[in-house]
Amino acid sequence: MASWLQIPKNSPFSLANIPFGIISASTSRVAAIAIGDYALNLHAFASSGGFSQLPAIQQHLSVFNQPTLNAFAALGRPVHRQVREYLQNVFRADTQYPQLLKDNADLQKTALVPLSQVTNHVPMQIGDYTDFYAGLNHAYNIGVLFRGPDNALQPNYKHLPVAYHGRASSVVPSGTPLHRPQGQILANPAADPKVPTFSPCKRLDIELELAAFISTPNDLGKPVSIEEAEDHIFGLVLMNDWSARDIQAWEYVPLGPFNAKNFGTTITPWVVLVDALEPFRAQGLEPGSRDSLLPYLREKRADTCYEIPLEVEITNKGGQPTIISNSNARNLLYSFPQMVAHHTITGCNLRTGDLLGSGTISGTEPKTQGSLLEQTNGKTPLKLADGSERMFLEDGDTIILRGKAGTEGAYVGFGDCAGTILPAVAL
Amino acid sequence: MASWLQIPKNSPFSLANIPFGIISASTSRVAAIAIGDYALNLHAFASSGGFSQLPAIQQHLSVFNQPTLNAFAALGRPVHRQVREYLQNVFRADTQYPQLLKDNADLQKTALVPLSQVTNHVPMQIGDYTDFYAGLNHAYNIGVLFRGPDNALQPNYKHLPVAYHGRASSVVPSGTPLHRPQGQILANPAADPKVPTFSPCKRLDIELELAAFISTPNDLGKPVSIEEAEDHIFGLVLMNDWSARDIQAWEYVPLGPFNAKNFGTTITPWVVLVDALEPFRAQGLEPGSRDSLLPYLREKRADTCYEIPLEVEITNKGGQPTIISNSNARNLLYSFPQMVAHHTITGCNLRTGDLLGSGTISGTEPKTQGSLLEQTNGKTPLKLADGSERMFLEDGDTIILRGKAGTEGAYVGFGDCAGTILPAVAL
Repeated sequence: MASWLQIPKNSPFSLANIPFGIISASTSRVAAIAIGDYALNLHAFASSGGFSQLPAIQQHLSVFNQPTLNAFAALGRPVHRQVREYLQNVFRADTQYPQLLKDNADLQKTALVPLSQVTNHVPMQIGDYTDFYAGLNHAYNIGVLFRGPDNALQPNYKHLPVAYHGRASSVVPSGTPLHRPQGQILANPAADPKVPTFSPCKRLDIELELAAFISTPNDLGKPVSIEEAEDHIFGLVLMNDWSARDIQAWEYVPLGPFNAKNFGTTITPWVVLVDALEPFRAQGLEPGSRDSLLPYLREKRADTCYEIPLEVEITNKGGQPTIISNSNARNLLYSFPQMVAHHTITGCNLRTGDLLGSGTISGTEPKTQGSLLEQTNGKTPLKLADGSERMFLEDGDTIILRGKAGTEGAYVGFGDCAGTILPAVAL
Repeated sequence: MASWLQIPKNSPFSLANIPFGIISASTSRVAAIAIGDYALNLHAFASSGGFSQLPAIQQHLSVFNQPTLNAFAALGRPVHRQVREYLQNVFRADTQYPQLLKDNADLQKTALVPLSQVTNHVPMQIGDYTDFYAGLNHAYNIGVLFRGPDNALQPNYKHLPVAYHGRASSVVPSGTPLHRPQGQILANPAADPKVPTFSPCKRLDIELELAAFISTPNDLGKPVSIEEAEDHIFGLVLMNDWSARDIQAWEYVPLGPFNAKNFGTTITPWVVLVDALEPFRAQGLEPGSRDSLLPYLREKRADTCYEIPLEVEITNKGGQPTIISNSNARNLLYSFPQMVAHHTITGCNLRTGDLLGSGTISGTEPKTQGSLLEQTNGKTPLKLADGSERMFLEDGDTIILRGKAGTEGAYVGFGDCAGTILPAVAL
C-alpha cells in the first residue's frame, strides 16, 4: 500500500500499521493514530467530518475527544477493524475519499502533527496490570541461576501461565525518566543471620516484554472461553518491566515480587491493534505441548503468537548506543488469549484498559536474552560500544526496546520504549 | 455524646463514628454517612444548605455528588476531620445548628434514608489494591503448616511488611455473592509427577483483614516518610480476602498468589475515618522490636495500631449462625503508616482510592484465627451450631466479618462484611 503522505521506509508506523494513542500538543489530551513521522489528531479529524464516510462510528465520535482510549477500546474489535481500515483508505495514494484529508490542506495543517511536537501519554486508564511469566527461556534461565538446571522450571510451569498482579499506578509512557529505587537489600546474601541494609538498588535490571490492553470486559463470575479470548484484546505495546534484583531477592518470599517492580514500568504509547498483527501470526514455543493442556487453555489454532523481531539498546548519557539483545515475540510458551482464559477462569473480571504483560522474552542463544541478569549472571559484564562494561544498569543509562514486524516500507512496529535511570532521590 | 436521632445502643454507627460511604437509593450514587439505622445523603444535605455553617467545605460541595469518595478523600485529613466534627455537631442532642436538620422535618424525610433501603457500593475508585501480610500470628501459623515451627517465618518477615499486589477489579461491597472459583488443583498433592486436574475449588477459605484507603497521593519518585504516612490514610474498612487454598498451593511458585485470590474480595462499604479511630490507638504485636527496624520504618509513637475486637460468623442458608473466631486488630506486626512508608520507599506512587490490606489478623489461641486453614489445618473440622462440620467453605455458606471499637452507645464499627458462596458456574 502506497500513501500520498511521505512515510519513511523504516518507519514502524507504515500504512500497514495504524496504531492508536493519546497525545497532547497545544491543548488537551485526544486520541490519535501514528503514521510515518506524524500523528493524526482524531478529534480534529472527526470534528471536520473526517469520519463522514464511516457510518459505524458516527454515534461514537466523542470517543476521540477523551484523555484515554478506553471508550474507543470498549466499542469492540469489529469497530476497531473498520476504523483502522477506513483510516488506511484515507491515507492510501488511491484513497476513495481524497476530499477528506489528501486534498484538504487546511485540515492537514491542524490535524497532522509531527510526532516530534506531540506529547504521548499512557493510552488507557489501566484498572489492573497483570504480569505473566510466559517467556519459557527466561523462566528457565532464571530458574537455572536460582535452582540449577534440573529444577529450573517449577512443576506448574508447563500447565498454566504463571502470573502476578503488578502495579498499575507507576506504568509510564516511553521517555519518562525513573529514579533508581531504594530499599532493603542484603549487602552480603551469604551471611547468616540475614540482616538487611538500606541502600539504592545495586542490581537494577530490565525486562523485555510485550503487553496487551483489554478492550471489552467480562463480568465477575463469567470466565472468557479460549475461543472468545482474542476478541477481548485491543492491541499490543512493548513494555520494560524494570526490576530491582537485590530488593527482589530479599523481599519475594513467600508472596512474590513487590517493591522490586513497583517503582516504574515503561510502555510504548502507541497501541498496535491485533488486526494489524494478523499477518504476523506465528506459533510460540513448543507448539506440540498444546494438546496436553487442560481444555480451558487449549487453542484451536496454533499460531496465536507473533513473529516480531525485538531488540534492546543501551546508551549512557547520549553516547554511543549498543544493541545488547535481539529476541523475538515467538519466544513465549503461552499466547495472550491463553493468558486471558487463565486469568478469568476463576471468574475474575477483566476491565477495559487492563494491561497484561507477557513476561520476559528471551531466546536461547547468547545476546538474545531480555534481561541483564540472564546475560551477565551478575558475574560476566557486558562490553558496550563506548568501551564501558555493564553488569547492571548505571545512573544515566538509557534503555530503548524496539520491535517491528514485517518488511521495509510496510513495518508494523511499536516505536521506541525508552527510559533513563536517574540517581536515587535524597531522602 | 447523645443524639436527637434514635441510635440503637449496639449500632456500630454511633455518633462517635460518622463513617463515609457511597449509596444509591432512588437515583444515582452519592456520598453519605451512616448513623444508627440511617444513611444521611450528603448531596441532599449539602443541596439544602446543610453545610452552610462550615466554610472549609463551601468550595467543594460537589464532592458529595459523585459516584465515589475519591474527590472528598483527596481534600485531605484536616477537611475530613472538620466535616466529621461538623456532622457530629448536627446530630448532637444539643446541636448548635438545630435548624439544619434536627428541626427540619422536610430535609429529614428526603436526606435521612433507612439503611435497609439503600444500596451500598465500593466507596472509592480503587487504582491499585495491595495486600500486606502483617498479621504475624497468621504468617507464623501458615508457616508452621508449610515449613514446620523452626522455619515458620521467612528471614525477611521481621524486617519489612511483606506484601503482594492484589486484584482491584473484583473488590466488591458487603452482600455481593461470589461463585466458587474453578481452576487447576492437584487432586493428589503427594503424587509425583505432579499433574493438575480442573475442578471447582475444594479448599475455599476466608481471610479476616482490615484495609486502609489512601486519601492524598504521592508523586512517582517521592517516598512518603513514616512521619507523614498516617496523613495519607483516609480511613479503614473490614475486608474478607477469599482464598482458594488448593489453587494457591499449585500456582503460587515462584511469583505468589494470583488466581487463588482474584475472583473476589469483600469489603465493608463504610469508611471509618482514622480520626474516628484515634481514641482506640494501641500498640500492635512486639512493640519492642520497633527499634531494630531500619529508620524509614521506625515510628516515633508506638500506638499506631488499633484496639478493635473482630469476629467471624458462618451461617448456611439462613440457618443458625456460629461465631467461629474472635480476634483483635492489635494482632498486627506492622501498622498502616509503616505499610505506606514501605510501599513508597522505592518511589512507588500511591493514588487517592488505593486500598491496602493488612493481611490476616489471627490471635494465638484456639478460635482466634482469621482463616479456616489455621483453625482446621485441613484435618480437624470445625463444629457449627447447626450440627454440621466445616473444613473449608461449602456452597451456600455466608461469612460475616464484624468489628467494632469502643463501648455500648458509642461504638465505632464497620458494620457487616458479608458474602455468600454460590456454586461454581457451569462452563
